[in-house]
Amino acid sequence: MLIVMEMNADAKRIGAVVEAVERRGLKAHPIPGSQRTAIGITGNIGTVEPAMFQDLPGVLEVIRVSHPYKLVSREFHQESSVFDVAGVRIGGPELVVMAGPCSVESYEQTLGIALKVKASGAHMLRGGAFKPRSSPYSFQGLGRQGLEILARVRQETGMPVITEALDIDVLDEVAEFTDIVQIGARNMQNFTLLKRAGRCGRPVLLKRGMSATITELLLAAEYILDAGNAEVILCERGIRTFADHTRNTLDVAAFPAVKRISHLPIIADPSHAAGYRNKVLPLSLAALAAGADGLLVEVHERPDEALSDGGQSLLPTDFEELMSELRALAPVLDRGLPTLAVT
Amino acid sequence: MLIVMEMNADAKRIGAVVEAVERRGLKAHPIPGSQRTAIGITGNIGTVEPAMFQDLPGVLEVIRVSHPYKLVSREFHQESSVFDVAGVRIGGPELVVMAGPCSVESYEQTLGIALKVKASGAHMLRGGAFKPRSSPYSFQGLGRQGLEILARVRQETGMPVITEALDIDVLDEVAEFTDIVQIGARNMQNFTLLKRAGRCGRPVLLKRGMSATITELLLAAEYILDAGNAEVILCERGIRTFADHTRNTLDVAAFPAVKRISHLPIIADPSHAAGYRNKVLPLSLAALAAGADGLLVEVHERPDEALSDGGQSLLPTDFEELMSELRALAPVLDRGLPTLAVT
Amino acid sequence: MLIVMEMNADAKRIGAVVEAVERRGLKAHPIPGSQRTAIGITGNIGTVEPAMFQDLPGVLEVIRVSHPYKLVSREFHQESSVFDVAGVRIGGPELVVMAGPCSVESYEQTLGIALKVKASGAHMLRGGAFKPRSSPYSFQGLGRQGLEILARVRQETGMPVITEALDIDVLDEVAEFTDIVQIGARNMQNFTLLKRAGRCGRPVLLKRGMSATITELLLAAEYILDAGNAEVILCERGIRTFADHTRNTLDVAAFPAVKRISHLPIIADPSHAAGYRNKVLPLSLAALAAGADGLLVEVHERPDEALSDGGQSLLPTDFEELMSELRALAPVLDRGLPTLAVT
Amino acid sequence: MLIVMEMNADAKRIGAVVEAVERRGLKAHPIPGSQRTAIGITGNIGTVEPAMFQDLPGVLEVIRVSHPYKLVSREFHQESSVFDVAGVRIGGPELVVMAGPCSVESYEQTLGIALKVKASGAHMLRGGAFKPRSSPYSFQGLGRQGLEILARVRQETGMPVITEALDIDVLDEVAEFTDIVQIGARNMQNFTLLKRAGRCGRPVLLKRGMSATITELLLAAEYILDAGNAEVILCERGIRTFADHTRNTLDVAAFPAVKRISHLPIIADPSHAAGYRNKVLPLSLAALAAGADGLLVEVHERPDEALSDGGQSLLPTDFEELMSELRALAPVLDRGLPTLAVT
Repeated sequence: MLIVMEMNADAKRIGAVVEAVERRGLKAHPIPGSQRTAIGITGNIGTVEPAMFQDLPGVLEVIRVSHPYKLVSREFHQESSVFDVAGVRIGGPELVVMAGPCSVESYEQTLGIALKVKASGAHMLRGGAFKPRSSPYSFQGLGRQGLEILARVRQETGMPVITEALDIDVLDEVAEFTDIVQIGARNMQNFTLLKRAGRCGRPVLLKRGMSATITELLLAAEYILDAGNAEVILCERGIRTFADHTRNTLDVAAFPAVKRISHLPIIADPSHAAGYRNKVLPLSLAALAAGADGLLVEVHERPDEALSDGGQSLLPTDFEELMSELRALAPVLDRGLPTLAVT
Repeated sequence: MLIVMEMNADAKRIGAVVEAVERRGLKAHPIPGSQRTAIGITGNIGTVEPAMFQDLPGVLEVIRVSHPYKLVSREFHQESSVFDVAGVRIGGPELVVMAGPCSVESYEQTLGIALKVKASGAHMLRGGAFKPRSSPYSFQGLGRQGLEILARVRQETGMPVITEALDIDVLDEVAEFTDIVQIGARNMQNFTLLKRAGRCGRPVLLKRGMSATITELLLAAEYILDAGNAEVILCERGIRTFADHTRNTLDVAAFPAVKRISHLPIIADPSHAAGYRNKVLPLSLAALAAGADGLLVEVHERPDEALSDGGQSLLPTDFEELMSELRALAPVLDRGLPTLAVT
Repeated sequence: MLIVMEMNADAKRIGAVVEAVERRGLKAHPIPGSQRTAIGITGNIGTVEPAMFQDLPGVLEVIRVSHPYKLVSREFHQESSVFDVAGVRIGGPELVVMAGPCSVESYEQTLGIALKVKASGAHMLRGGAFKPRSSPYSFQGLGRQGLEILARVRQETGMPVITEALDIDVLDEVAEFTDIVQIGARNMQNFTLLKRAGRCGRPVLLKRGMSATITELLLAAEYILDAGNAEVILCERGIRTFADHTRNTLDVAAFPAVKRISHLPIIADPSHAAGYRNKVLPLSLAALAAGADGLLVEVHERPDEALSDGGQSLLPTDFEELMSELRALAPVLDRGLPTLAVT
Repeated sequence: MLIVMEMNADAKRIGAVVEAVERRGLKAHPIPGSQRTAIGITGNIGTVEPAMFQDLPGVLEVIRVSHPYKLVSREFHQESSVFDVAGVRIGGPELVVMAGPCSVESYEQTLGIALKVKASGAHMLRGGAFKPRSSPYSFQGLGRQGLEILARVRQETGMPVITEALDIDVLDEVAEFTDIVQIGARNMQNFTLLKRAGRCGRPVLLKRGMSATITELLLAAEYILDAGNAEVILCERGIRTFADHTRNTLDVAAFPAVKRISHLPIIADPSHAAGYRNKVLPLSLAALAAGADGLLVEVHERPDEALSDGGQSLLPTDFEELMSELRALAPVLDRGLPTLAVT
């Protein structure tokens, strides 16, 4: 932590701040400059809050220097983490594609889409059984029945499955049925859910909140790792900005930023970022080019009849095209595609 | 819903869109303009998604017209709602002030602050037993013990209490001990929690999410009302923007905006918006001047030793000053202050 | 400036950074901490850029500490600046109100509004002769003719006038006709215009850009002061955020934030922030309660026929009500209203 | 335009709105729905403002439907525009790369960088002679001397040149020396400059403002086209958001969004978006993958000594790597690279 003094702070005020620092068992390092003095603080910084000093006379501002995350940090774990999820490696050189409907609507719908996306080369099946919806009057998902449909389709297609746990009351149930437990953007700071997800026995896909900084995303992941679960996959799904030509603004710089700071894998959800089908393909390619480890994409056979998010769902033919572009792009990025374990 | 056609969309394309609308049992109303045609849709709009039409040939864009909330709307309930919480009326002409520490740290600390804010004129006591913290390594609150402290201080001071329920696992416990259940900004779209809060038997204070629109805030409240609980108090606590001189940007226009659309009361949390003690007083007055029904303010006797949010906590003397300014301001705004039922 | 080293940076890397600092004639102050080392830099910091060090091996980040503005800073000029504009004092205890039409449309329209706002107590007349419009097909203002109308109305009513200079080609002309030269939000970083405004011989009202930080606003003002003009009045007019219930989000914390850092006056433009007439009154009161030194408000007798911004213009009766509320509010804020010099 | 009535608006209120519409010579089309009535308006909409109707009794909101731009629109000009700039085609299948220093600092520096980026395959040379700087105390560019250096390097290397015109006072001078006149992000709504740029006789590169919507960007371009200059190249350079891991957030969805609405070319400036050298390469690839027509990149031989923006400037070796990745990527995107006319 660094305390910056006002220009006209005299020796007495500087001394009083130094004393306040030392009273807390920390060490103060005054750095007199040409215009003003700064005071570095060292010691057990974890217990120190800027508030402790910011109102002392002569203090201009207090700047936090150390970063509050540990387990997710590349400083603590230099090599990139790679997780094996039912035979699919995530975070390695392979680009992983998870595709499927926004909501599980029926067995036939889910199986139909699963077969098509598998044929086009998807590695995992996505589909929501519990849906977070802004309005209480929108379709809320099939719940338990949706999980059973996913399990059945998983068995018939051999595709590993990812689905969302909306809260702690369904977390265990979801974990039982799925290969990856998804925590949605609106729940990124549902700390109770994060802690429990740390003990759910499944890899967790954690979506970045709509207005979360990278630091907050990593701290949310830290909750899960701290609770004992090392297998966390991050997901950038667009942030909320003033821009109105997409539902959210896909922050492609998040990929290199996370890679630099953390060892965790990070994939992209271009569907929720776009909000419109016609932008899903370009956003997918952009995310991969920027360094994403894979994609989470919505596909629907009859988007105009989808019970949720139809407008952003790719048609199977669109998805086929996306996979074909992805296969061409991968080698340029020095990346491959997973060889599916199951056939 | 309104479908706007491209300028060069011919009669055939317009006809095809009309047909697509009518196939869904809705009625299409083409409005030929000088440059382009728009098509109004009427009927049971609730089941219609823009996605159903936006990719038809010749469609430029699809605009939602009706609003998705009902129970919270002033169109359905014209008079402003006023709730009586343990003798304190919220939403009426009185300006209600809830004050206390960010976190309940001990019985002595809580009682000490409670007595001081009561002496200055606060009507309710706030204090967190369960704390949502960005980092797993920050103080997470005293939990159950914190609730018991609040109950004891409630009894000794006669002040009604408001405290946060972090998730469904503690909701009933919190509801048992408190007069108002608070749902935090990070949980505004924790839909499971919202539904349960609708059956918790207590008034609920719902904070606006950091990046939530007014529509989303009202829809979140709609979840609670729809589940059977009409007593929802909204709270503006600042939104996330690029501005860096406060922790969040207090959106004072939210007060008149909510009042116009909804009958629910809305108060301000200037402490979390400001992030710095020295901005809490001006933000408090601004919120009230813009139409807020009250304040939720953090006060601490030794902010530099607070276990959370010390930097934004008012000292008791600051709070005394705030209440004095508020008393002067209230009549200018044609508002009064509650007469405390308990002494 | 402060260089934060990575946790695993060894003595050699730290030494190399120290050397790089000293090679530039600066002084390096290593501060070894429990987890990592930070290096404070002192000396003639003005010429130093973070880029000079951020890519050296072992450097985690480089943090700027000193503030780049001088003349506008309260550190250099402790007392609040008060300017006398044609007898109206701005920045002192008086709340100043500048009101009038968005655009000068005709002599009759301008005189009509001027007489009404003067009767209600406005101290200055606002009105645009040159209009910045998003679309080239919107009304662009009467130009020179508009300035002449303002001058005539100024003479007949005795009200000092404020109007915008869109660029350097009309700056001298505008300065000749007006009492205060306005620089609009879109021009806040039109540095050529700022420099010339520093030599225009008139007080300047500088609006905050839609996405400008307080630091950027103050630096823009610094351009004007640095060019020789000390009379700069700042204006908060709303920032661009995701919120969609107003045109922009009025950042009321800007008032105390600017007052703390700078000695310059700052007023509010609630009309452009609101975008809707029905939010102008609450935003006005909120701005004043937060510490604004005055208001810049749009008023029109027939807003539905206004050539620009009709939707946010107050009717004369609305303005009358605003002034009446302002008169009631002023004493609560320990502020008065200017006694008009001219009658 | 569409007027949405309140649910409880009766026939009389609807009739009054219809009448108000017709009084203005427009046609009103009431669309009675199950919950409320909407009223479509047709006719010469250009002169109509929502404000004209939004305060009539019973009106809930007024929604603009038509788009205000024309000449830039793909509806008016279906084929993508391709411009030939000194032998380099922009907007066609070729990916164009403009590279060079942020600021022209000396003849040697500029020539050195130009030769290196040319050797790596850059097609045009960028370099600022007039620099927009937040602080008046930062290096403001060499001005006229910088233009002469660019001209000399242009002649010696055969590379076409792009440089910024800060305002109308230097526009003609800049236009005389450069192949493309750049208008910076801070000037996107400097309407005087836009109009003059429409008559400057050179292609114009128009950067998106930091908080501009796509509609506003296109309207700014419309000013230039409307003034007679069809050769406008747009440039996405990052928008201002809350995200703090880059200087700005590169909005890659802007590329497909602009391509869909407009026929104008659009390139990316990854350097200003990133703010940090280590993110320029991933952002470059992401922009191209999303559909950008080229790049504008900062390169410096000694970034730690650059007079501006050193931290985001690529080293020549980084740029070499970027060009090599770009050459590999281009065929995947069905794009090529320009064959340089000059050698």
